[in-house]
Amino acid sequence: MDCIFCKIASGEIPSYKIYEDENIVAILDISQATKGHTLVISKKHYKNLYDINEETAGEIFKVIPKIANAIKKAFNPIGLNVIINTEKPLQTVFHFHIHIIPRYFQDGVDIDFINNQGNTSKAEYEDIRNRIMKEF
Amino acid sequence: MDCIFCKIASGEIPSYKIYEDENIVAILDISQATKGHTLVISKKHYKNLYDINEETAGEIFKVIPKIANAIKKAFNPIGLNVIINTEKPLQTVFHFHIHIIPRYFQDGVDIDFINNQGNTSKAEYEDIRNRIMKEF
Repeated sequence: MDCIFCKIASGEIPSYKIYEDENIVAILDISQATKGHTLVISKKHYKNLYDINEETAGEIFKVIPKIANAIKKAFNPIGLNVIINTEKPLQTVFHFHIHIIPRYFQDGVDIDFINNQGNTSKAEYEDIRNRIMKEF
Repeated sequence: MDCIFCKIASGEIPSYKIYEDENIVAILDISQATKGHTLVISKKHYKNLYDINEETAGEIFKVIPKIANAIKKAFNPIGLNVIINTEKPLQTVFHFHIHIIPRYFQDGVDIDFINNQGNTSKAEYEDIRNRIMKEF
């Protein structure tokens, strides 16, 4: 399979690797959106979050606080975002990965959400809840 | 302790709960940035990602794919973002939580990063890598 992240995980393509365990490799994101921007890549190929079972998710995700704390100690950011993009509009490489993005004052990262509390009725909240609950 | 998410997790404050296991409760985010916007809240109080050990992180995070898939089945979004905000500029409630935000065409969510590959030298990548690696 011609997957760039499989090749990075196996070492076939070089990367700036900062950490590795039996489940993941963590490398610098080549885009360095901010200083220390890191990708945690699963060693096994999964297309994205949807395809990972519960046990595997625990094994992959457990290392995130450790890596976040290493980045914190290295660069003393004001904070940090962990982001997992799944399909559109932001997933560009279809091999599961987690962004860890340290944040700095006026760093050029922009994350904006709308607050719809004022235009969502109790009946709408209940309908949304019920529609999700029946899919478990 | 006067923590709103502790009170939601215990049921003292009502919420639109969609899922629960021994480690987490998942509720609709009252802001509903998009339809199905969900918060996964740890039952135990942790200030944020930095304060969670590896074993606990695995136990908390493992449920994310299951919840993401339920949201996918319920609303058929074009994709989905998982976001964990840690300290500034975006963490507003200091009790660990994970956002799951389904995405739709022109949904008003905006996530923008700068690509610094063109202005980062090999020596800079190596310096960043080395500074993080020595903190493990």
